[in-house]
Amino acid sequence: MLARHPERVAAVRIAAQRDDARVRAIEELARRQQRPVERIDAQSLKRLVGDVVHQGVAAQITPLPPWSEDELLAALSTATAPLLLALDGVQDPHNLGACLRTADACGALAVIVPRDRAAQVTPAVRKVAAGAAEVTPVVAVTNLSRSLKLLKDAGLWVVGADAAAESHADSVDLKGPVVLVLGAEGTGLRQLTRQNCDFLVRLPQLGAVESLNVSVAAGMLLYEAARQRGRWRA
Amino acid sequence: MLARHPERVAAVRIAAQRDDARVRAIEELARRQQRPVERIDAQSLKRLVGDVVHQGVAAQITPLPPWSEDELLAALSTATAPLLLALDGVQDPHNLGACLRTADACGALAVIVPRDRAAQVTPAVRKVAAGAAEVTPVVAVTNLSRSLKLLKDAGLWVVGADAAAESHADSVDLKGPVVLVLGAEGTGLRQLTRQNCDFLVRLPQLGAVESLNVSVAAGMLLYEAARQRGRWRA
Repeated sequence: MLARHPERVAAVRIAAQRDDARVRAIEELARRQQRPVERIDAQSLKRLVGDVVHQGVAAQITPLPPWSEDELLAALSTATAPLLLALDGVQDPHNLGACLRTADACGALAVIVPRDRAAQVTPAVRKVAAGAAEVTPVVAVTNLSRSLKLLKDAGLWVVGADAAAESHADSVDLKGPVVLVLGAEGTGLRQLTRQNCDFLVRLPQLGAVESLNVSVAAGMLLYEAARQRGRWRA
Repeated sequence: MLARHPERVAAVRIAAQRDDARVRAIEELARRQQRPVERIDAQSLKRLVGDVVHQGVAAQITPLPPWSEDELLAALSTATAPLLLALDGVQDPHNLGACLRTADACGALAVIVPRDRAAQVTPAVRKVAAGAAEVTPVVAVTNLSRSLKLLKDAGLWVVGADAAAESHADSVDLKGPVVLVLGAEGTGLRQLTRQNCDFLVRLPQLGAVESLNVSVAAGMLLYEAARQRGRWRA
């Protein structure tokens, strides 16, 4: 964040007693980027970050404003093989937070959620996302089907996860411009969303339990895309 | 469950107004297996299952007793290319429940957890696991390192997920007898656990956030094993 988006780092706080190479490198980078650095005692740092594992350093990040659909389309026009995640009515903030975190790890450009009847980015979601909500843009759209059509027009393939699909997730090419679509917990993709998919793919379902947790299913599909693209580290 | 382990189904309850092919097939199977079937009204069914999506049918399952290490080793001796999941100190019941559910979906034989300083199978975990705790045996072990050594002696490869690993998860063969090891939230694998791994593999980490949620990481690694094995449906 300091290296790539210094303008969004409002302040850096480091535990007073930490003085290893990693902490010194962060301190040096913050000063070079002219961001305020403050040494604070371990107790204050703990209060600041709550029960997140912090390794002695906390940055105060200016929250990323949500993107409009136009901003998304503008970003897509300059991106190479963009990867998007769309969540069709995920209600649980925990699942949305986990999906943001995984989308960040797998190189997704943005995450699309419907504006109604779906979890939005709240403080609870930010906490579960462990920082990913500050770096992965969320696009709240009025009509997901319409947005998927716009994305198709912009050259993206729409790939939905569906328990009844014939194709395995690794049999579809996810290396190009693609939006991965996951359905809501328990009910899956809505009919209209399913109709907008170019491909429907299946994830493993060897067991007695019928569906995967949606954040785990999103993780598998994003993993499959990252795997095919062969890019694993920033 | 009715088809494979009828002895563990104490009773089946079906919403009174449901009468489609799926429900009739379940009813017929239950009668053939001589398990009690009862029609109850929708409200009672809802009370019974809480906020789980139920599709009109609920089965009362006798909880699976935890396996001892000896029972695990006995099961391994007759299994072909067994897949195990070991969680090195996962504390969050939500994460353990999600891991059980994914282990079930990906065909894992059992899940191993340390007896101390780690989440055990509680009612909260069973709820998140959405039935998987009733079918996927959990083995609580006193000393995970010792257990991993026993598993190696039994012919399993020990594969740990580690952010610093050189190998990508899909570059290691997971088709044979294998135990996948995931570290605790935030801290990863303990030193002694890491030393017992035959392979350390990396999952995607393209983003600004340092580590994946442990249940998502477990999902990616179990998905990779299922993918390589080419088995996706029971």
